[in-house]
Amino acid sequence: MAKVTINCDMGEAFSIYRLGDDEACMPFITHANVACGFHASDPVTMWRTVKAAKRHGIAIGSHPGLPDREGFGRREMSMTREEISALVLYQSGALKAYLDAEGLALSHIKPHGALFGMAQRQAHVAEGIADAALALGVPVIGYADCVMSEVFIRRGVPFQCEFYSDLEYDDDGRQIITRQHESVAEEAMVEKVRRAVTEGLTRSVNGRDVKVTAESICVHSDTPNAIQLARAVHAALADWL
Amino acid sequence: MAKVTINCDMGEAFSIYRLGDDEACMPFITHANVACGFHASDPVTMWRTVKAAKRHGIAIGSHPGLPDREGFGRREMSMTREEISALVLYQSGALKAYLDAEGLALSHIKPHGALFGMAQRQAHVAEGIADAALALGVPVIGYADCVMSEVFIRRGVPFQCEFYSDLEYDDDGRQIITRQHESVAEEAMVEKVRRAVTEGLTRSVNGRDVKVTAESICVHSDTPNAIQLARAVHAALADWL
Amino acid sequence: MAKVTINCDMGEAFSIYRLGDDEACMPFITHANVACGFHASDPVTMWRTVKAAKRHGIAIGSHPGLPDREGFGRREMSMTREEISALVLYQSGALKAYLDAEGLALSHIKPHGALFGMAQRQAHVAEGIADAALALGVPVIGYADCVMSEVFIRRGVPFQCEFYSDLEYDDDGRQIITRQHESVAEEAMVEKVRRAVTEGLTRSVNGRDVKVTAESICVHSDTPNAIQLARAVHAALADWL
Amino acid sequence: MAKVTINCDMGEAFSIYRLGDDEACMPFITHANVACGFHASDPVTMWRTVKAAKRHGIAIGSHPGLPDREGFGRREMSMTREEISALVLYQSGALKAYLDAEGLALSHIKPHGALFGMAQRQAHVAEGIADAALALGVPVIGYADCVMSEVFIRRGVPFQCEFYSDLEYDDDGRQIITRQHESVAEEAMVEKVRRAVTEGLTRSVNGRDVKVTAESICVHSDTPNAIQLARAVHAALADWL
Repeated sequence: MAKVTINCDMGEAFSIYRLGDDEACMPFITHANVACGFHASDPVTMWRTVKAAKRHGIAIGSHPGLPDREGFGRREMSMTREEISALVLYQSGALKAYLDAEGLALSHIKPHGALFGMAQRQAHVAEGIADAALALGVPVIGYADCVMSEVFIRRGVPFQCEFYSDLEYDDDGRQIITRQHESVAEEAMVEKVRRAVTEGLTRSVNGRDVKVTAESICVHSDTPNAIQLARAVHAALADWL
Repeated sequence: MAKVTINCDMGEAFSIYRLGDDEACMPFITHANVACGFHASDPVTMWRTVKAAKRHGIAIGSHPGLPDREGFGRREMSMTREEISALVLYQSGALKAYLDAEGLALSHIKPHGALFGMAQRQAHVAEGIADAALALGVPVIGYADCVMSEVFIRRGVPFQCEFYSDLEYDDDGRQIITRQHESVAEEAMVEKVRRAVTEGLTRSVNGRDVKVTAESICVHSDTPNAIQLARAVHAALADWL
Repeated sequence: MAKVTINCDMGEAFSIYRLGDDEACMPFITHANVACGFHASDPVTMWRTVKAAKRHGIAIGSHPGLPDREGFGRREMSMTREEISALVLYQSGALKAYLDAEGLALSHIKPHGALFGMAQRQAHVAEGIADAALALGVPVIGYADCVMSEVFIRRGVPFQCEFYSDLEYDDDGRQIITRQHESVAEEAMVEKVRRAVTEGLTRSVNGRDVKVTAESICVHSDTPNAIQLARAVHAALADWL
Repeated sequence: MAKVTINCDMGEAFSIYRLGDDEACMPFITHANVACGFHASDPVTMWRTVKAAKRHGIAIGSHPGLPDREGFGRREMSMTREEISALVLYQSGALKAYLDAEGLALSHIKPHGALFGMAQRQAHVAEGIADAALALGVPVIGYADCVMSEVFIRRGVPFQCEFYSDLEYDDDGRQIITRQHESVAEEAMVEKVRRAVTEGLTRSVNGRDVKVTAESICVHSDTPNAIQLARAVHAALADWL
């Protein structure tokens, strides 16, 4: 059975606003995707998140988003390939400075929200992300069977295919991005993750079984019962981690 | 005679706005201080500026500013040491990503505008800059005989003392920061720079001779006759570069 | 006994971030100070807050802050009088558009955080606020016995003096601005408010009785026991409202 | 012959950046569309632009854009109807505060860049603009024969159809938005405007004659020969103004 990782978006607090309990979630994940100040986070939050992840010994990657703090990076924007690669480099580099300060290396890049969604459909967006990943020499947490995976395979960008433990999927096997994450039932979610990892299948919103590739499981730290779910996913995948 | 460098703030364009003719200035400087997106610049502008500086073979440092684009980083803000070090790391790291992409190393840090001014008077600001410089292992273009230089000397932060070719100095030997740079007469400026480098003296706005340390000369690319002045300074200092 | 009002800062949510339970607090206040997008809030949040306050029939004023979302408007910035008046007008005008849409009038202006603090000490900041208030023809919730009140009295700007139910005061009778609001004991707070309103006195952090003018009581909606406190203050002041 | 107006986007400077020579253009236009701080401008620039337009006695409308300063409002963003109406109200209200201060009324709304383009194709965007225009009781400078005009006609939003003197048109009679405006030959432009006003026709980029409705001619203040062109258009339309 292929090795599986568990990743979580983190450091999405901003100013005096809190979002999720990152540190409570860290014992149950292997990879932290740290927001980089465009859709969420700020310099102090980023550095503190890096220090917390270091204490927990987990891998730290960048989680770059569109320059849209008000929309939390969840509103699609029309951007050129040069703009995409420049913004992924900018945000990943900013995070790397805190990793440098803590004697750590950048582990990976995971695009956030609308940037991630756009890259699954628009080749020039996927190319821009590939440009940045190759320049920095790190893999991407991405998505299977779409424009993004085609571009990454062709360009030789190493990537892991992600499966969302708490998002719905459509009949094409694409996750459905929502503006607010909702509470999810633990038992159903664990079964959903287990099935995605072992069978490569998930049930779509319309009740159809669709193929998915689940090499890295995404959990969230900001859903109502987030920590409980992360612990459950972690326990269920213990043999594959 | 001690070696002298010539530095210039660059990449301060933003969005559709242009500012200065960076590339025309590059033949006449040794060090480019590239704005990093807080007081000016944006990801695409930063990357293009790095590529241009690479073509000219000049050293590339970060030019971090306060998070105040509207005030071009020239309005003092009350910030903690942690906020200062985090913002210098963030911006310098962002720039480093473009240097990574181009196979170059970060040469130095030069704080911008009000951040530079605050560091000359407020110890916690100078400490924050020192934290970032030591974490990244690069020297700072700074200022002599002030809180900043005291902190840097005590902490072992390597730094070069800067002299502004086109700013006025007060009776304490401090440069006077203005919101708009004005046109300067070439001959007077060359003589001012020559005197600062060779005699360590300059004439203050009040007509007094004050001590200055001129290890790096700052020229600008956005004054009306900027390129002409940069060429003249470069020619005048040919023997010391 | 002079009539007293109860005001509360509201609409300080932003993007997907929540802050305080505004609507739960509205039954216990007379005046809502609505954040205007510079230190907090965004257009959709502002409009929704106006609609909620309209349902509760309370007066709606603007709560303009410094252009520093990352610092929640709590970091002082060096600004000119023109910049101050222009930013108060901008933010108050933006709020007025939602009031226009709902058939309501702007009730007042209450400066936020560092802008409020600066206006108590710096004449040009108080003048800038006065310029905006006079242009819009609305009173200001301000502070007694300081530069701000001197400027407002001289210029004929109508204002109410504010007393903070949940902030500490120093020996000069000035509130102490903190970055995070803390939980406060109900009984002590009610007594503090009662004493400020009826005796014009409060106990400073150093245990001294200092004179205060309490024409409008400020409660918060984002402290841990905020709603309970607002209800208690409202009940205690029932005879003066 | 129907009366024609000449409008120009103005106040698009920002921070220390200049853009166009607004005041030199004002003698040759009837309506100023003032940028409102989202895609360009800032509070001080807005107020100064209003004062300048007042001196020239021209009508002043708002020129709201998407919240994308880095892209100058020229990158499409995915937004809801509520977000659109809230952002048009916010920006128009901010401008109205300066008009209040100067004793003037808001004349009209003209959406900027990608917001304008989106409204020509997406009904919910046009609806959001209509919501704001009706709430503020002002007409819109819009576009004929598209989703926008259908929505405005159905909702009873008064609007003038715009013709761009210096943009190319496609075969459907839609202007082609570019990121940078280019220099245009005077004689050809005057003839293009004259033909659009008198014949309701223009030549597309592909050389076809397409129908256009030219009730308000848009000139720009930031093209290389902008003032000369504005003067020429103004002279050519003298009989219809």
